[in-house]
Amino acid sequence: MRTLRVNLAERGYPIHIGHRILQKPDLFAPYLAGQSVAIVTNETVAPLYLSTLCDTLTKLGIRPLEIILPDGEKHKNWQTLQGIFDALLAARYERNSTLIALGGGVIGDMGGFAAACYQRGMPFIQIPTTLLAQVDSSVGGKTAINHPLGKNMIGAFYQPRLVLADTHTLATLPDRELSAGFAEVIKYGLIRDRHFLDWLEEHLPDLRQRHETLLEEAIWQSCRHKAEIVAADEREAGERALLNLGHTFGHAIETGVGYGSWLHGEAVAAGTVMAAQLSCMLGFLPEYDVLRVKKLFAAADLPVRGPGEERNMRVERYLSLMRHDKKTLSGKLRLILLKSLGEAFIHAAPDEETVMEAIRICSELE
Amino acid sequence: MRTLRVNLAERGYPIHIGHRILQKPDLFAPYLAGQSVAIVTNETVAPLYLSTLCDTLTKLGIRPLEIILPDGEKHKNWQTLQGIFDALLAARYERNSTLIALGGGVIGDMGGFAAACYQRGMPFIQIPTTLLAQVDSSVGGKTAINHPLGKNMIGAFYQPRLVLADTHTLATLPDRELSAGFAEVIKYGLIRDRHFLDWLEEHLPDLRQRHETLLEEAIWQSCRHKAEIVAADEREAGERALLNLGHTFGHAIETGVGYGSWLHGEAVAAGTVMAAQLSCMLGFLPEYDVLRVKKLFAAADLPVRGPGEERNMRVERYLSLMRHDKKTLSGKLRLILLKSLGEAFIHAAPDEETVMEAIRICSELE
Repeated sequence: MRTLRVNLAERGYPIHIGHRILQKPDLFAPYLAGQSVAIVTNETVAPLYLSTLCDTLTKLGIRPLEIILPDGEKHKNWQTLQGIFDALLAARYERNSTLIALGGGVIGDMGGFAAACYQRGMPFIQIPTTLLAQVDSSVGGKTAINHPLGKNMIGAFYQPRLVLADTHTLATLPDRELSAGFAEVIKYGLIRDRHFLDWLEEHLPDLRQRHETLLEEAIWQSCRHKAEIVAADEREAGERALLNLGHTFGHAIETGVGYGSWLHGEAVAAGTVMAAQLSCMLGFLPEYDVLRVKKLFAAADLPVRGPGEERNMRVERYLSLMRHDKKTLSGKLRLILLKSLGEAFIHAAPDEETVMEAIRICSELE
Repeated sequence: MRTLRVNLAERGYPIHIGHRILQKPDLFAPYLAGQSVAIVTNETVAPLYLSTLCDTLTKLGIRPLEIILPDGEKHKNWQTLQGIFDALLAARYERNSTLIALGGGVIGDMGGFAAACYQRGMPFIQIPTTLLAQVDSSVGGKTAINHPLGKNMIGAFYQPRLVLADTHTLATLPDRELSAGFAEVIKYGLIRDRHFLDWLEEHLPDLRQRHETLLEEAIWQSCRHKAEIVAADEREAGERALLNLGHTFGHAIETGVGYGSWLHGEAVAAGTVMAAQLSCMLGFLPEYDVLRVKKLFAAADLPVRGPGEERNMRVERYLSLMRHDKKTLSGKLRLILLKSLGEAFIHAAPDEETVMEAIRICSELE
């Protein structure tokens, strides 16, 4: 097991990363504020890991309240959130109760937002069970639900007390979701760590075979990078924006084809290739580096081209969706691009014709 | 005009208090992040002050989005909040847009919570138009909506960039609501400022006549007290609890008789008398001080007795409702009492028989 400390003003917390650590009561004990603990999970994760977690808590004399939600992004809405509040209030849970989110990104986002809002904030522990959630949402305190007019439009910045990333939970993760997680892992290498990129090129085949020790290393490195960025920029004003490499293109793809059709990591992979292509066209990146980016994502079994006309994605639609991205400031397009492999930067006003050309080249529109 | 600076880690802000300051664009200019400004108000306040505010913003070249909600606590719920999100998203407002809440406590709580959650937080300006909102909710960053199972159960701590308390808006406030506001003003004197209490005893008759300069002073003193407490204890762990003098009893009254029947300030007044009575029975306060407390509230035309059987409020019901108060920790009753006039303290485990006796003495049950 390795431990990473996320340092934030007043609210630092540890991330424990390791094999079967869900079974270790000692890791929980220091972070439970009282005897009242609620576990928020979903119908898919509950049969796999809920009893393990409950057994661990039982050893601490705790009988948790189980709140089992339906699975899927389409339930990441107010109605489901309200169900969490209803359960907590019916059980008369107070603000010193602890909420544990056990599941992937949707559970973490909703559980975290519920914890942020319940009686104006209750202690929160996150147990991400997908690779994407372990390397992405376990650092940064972003929580949210979707609104009919946009993804993650309603939410809060809210930090957990503790994150447990148990690599054993990845054993049951579908291949496609594992691959989607690697999109964000590769991203950390691309934006700030060329050495990690080399390491990934070497180990991606074994990582895809779920090699425990390598997974632990990849998750640790990813969380370390994100933690360093977030510690420097908690409210997303500056450097933190670099984490959105490929995301503005990616969100356009996700929204354009309808959520759930492309996984987030898949859209980010194709979106990052677009960002790399644009970086090349603007003279920052040599063509062979764009190729290297493509090969990396391909090695993780991720798409390297965005959808085209067959999914109703014309280039104007890409652009219009990108302008409505919530990272957009005052309607102007603002993209994260690559100066080199391992170094990202914010481009405040890229020429839209060039952006459209990059999209065309890196999609089925070509 | 007087200005008070609320000092919080990273997020201090000014409260301007004065006559007709709503008409001064210079007070707004430094705090508007962009040209996109939304005003959240209600059907009662809009005809009175919305055009004044819009005129002021027009002088800054801003055409605000107007979001007019139905009036009343019963609309302080998710449906109404969703209406704010819908309007902001339909207008494509981004996270650097500013939300201004123009109205009483309900508008401030909902507008603030909407600002806290919209795209994980947008700049927020508060213009409280009732005395209660000016002296209470303009400091502390508490925002919330109600849940069918409890008041203010879903919310956030979220600080405004700026608060404008225009005493001119009190001209149209119904007498009963003005009185309710004085309950909180008197509370500040009771918990930490005997001198202010003397001042209030002298000036309450003129304050009720809405004497501008005296109102400015009363609001300034109240905000100063609350700001000092909140700065020392932003997340409500210690001293901030003292602000709840009379509130655990008061919430029981509000919930027990059904929200809207008693105003919050009325319930707090009767609740504070109960707290004073209990303080007396426990040997802290002499009887003539309990009498003085009653006289103060009576001078503000506030009730000094809680409801009884005729409102279905038996003493056991009081106690049961008080145990479910969200300030309760682990089911134990925890009350704010008075050591003397001008000095409050937390009593962690008052004897329930004595509490019930105090309730009986100070209600229509007697």
